[in-house]
Amino acid sequence: MKLHSFLSIILFVVVFQRVTYPQQTIPPKPISDTAQTSLLKTDADFNKLAAQKGFIDAFLAYMADDAILFPAGSGPITGRENIRKHLSDGPADAILSWQPQKAYVAISGDLGCTYGTSEYKFKGQDGKPVIHYGKYITVWKKQPDKSWKFILDIGNQSPPPEKK
Amino acid sequence: MKLHSFLSIILFVVVFQRVTYPQQTIPPKPISDTAQTSLLKTDADFNKLAAQKGFIDAFLAYMADDAILFPAGSGPITGRENIRKHLSDGPADAILSWQPQKAYVAISGDLGCTYGTSEYKFKGQDGKPVIHYGKYITVWKKQPDKSWKFILDIGNQSPPPEKK
Repeated sequence: MKLHSFLSIILFVVVFQRVTYPQQTIPPKPISDTAQTSLLKTDADFNKLAAQKGFIDAFLAYMADDAILFPAGSGPITGRENIRKHLSDGPADAILSWQPQKAYVAISGDLGCTYGTSEYKFKGQDGKPVIHYGKYITVWKKQPDKSWKFILDIGNQSPPPEKK
Repeated sequence: MKLHSFLSIILFVVVFQRVTYPQQTIPPKPISDTAQTSLLKTDADFNKLAAQKGFIDAFLAYMADDAILFPAGSGPITGRENIRKHLSDGPADAILSWQPQKAYVAISGDLGCTYGTSEYKFKGQDGKPVIHYGKYITVWKKQPDKSWKFILDIGNQSPPPEKK
């Protein structure tokens, strides 16, 4: 039984840690904190890949097969090819980048989410750069190979950041 | 140790179920399905409360203390009083309703999310009804009293549903 085995392993790890380090004075970082840091890094790596290879390839690399996009102004979009088409709809020079701010991960480590801010930049018809500011929530599912892939992604517009 | 106790209880329940019903021919519904149904019902109950008492009271009833709203066109909003103020910003006769479509719940049952479609209705300046269609993702956290409260909520606009 998969769940049984999974929990036995976790229980073993927890017990093992207690037995091995009963006297440690510095408490270990909570499991959830480590998992949150890991998921936050995944989202940051996702953004890095978008900077390197373009956001369309990055989305295709980080999406689960059953992922759903929830773009503003459109209905939900499912399927790798539909998602590729939708992401290609914008200006050819468009750059999407984002800054993950926080991650939440379930105790079991199989489900999590991140949120952050985003910028969608392209050159307007007058040749001047246009930036659409936004924020997003991405829901992630741990895959059988232990990697995180996103299953849901939604964003909406934000006002431009206040000038300092 | 909280996590240890929690896992021991789950392990006990799993083992107990196997010992008690070793010969059952109808396999029990997967845990995740039951949890998903329960969370989907919570979101539906949330919408019912909005219909009965107004969406502002419903949001205040179903939000976790550290919940964050991500409204389109505004920055993230935190804190009960700020959230109340933001939700009160619209037309006095505004009605927000939604239809939860799917829920995801972690194996550990402490984190989940729902998505669905929404309508925001009010009377326009010309006296005619205005409807803004949308979709949303809500992230939920199981509370110490075993109830689900939302910790993140985001939505964006959708085109009107196609006429049949």
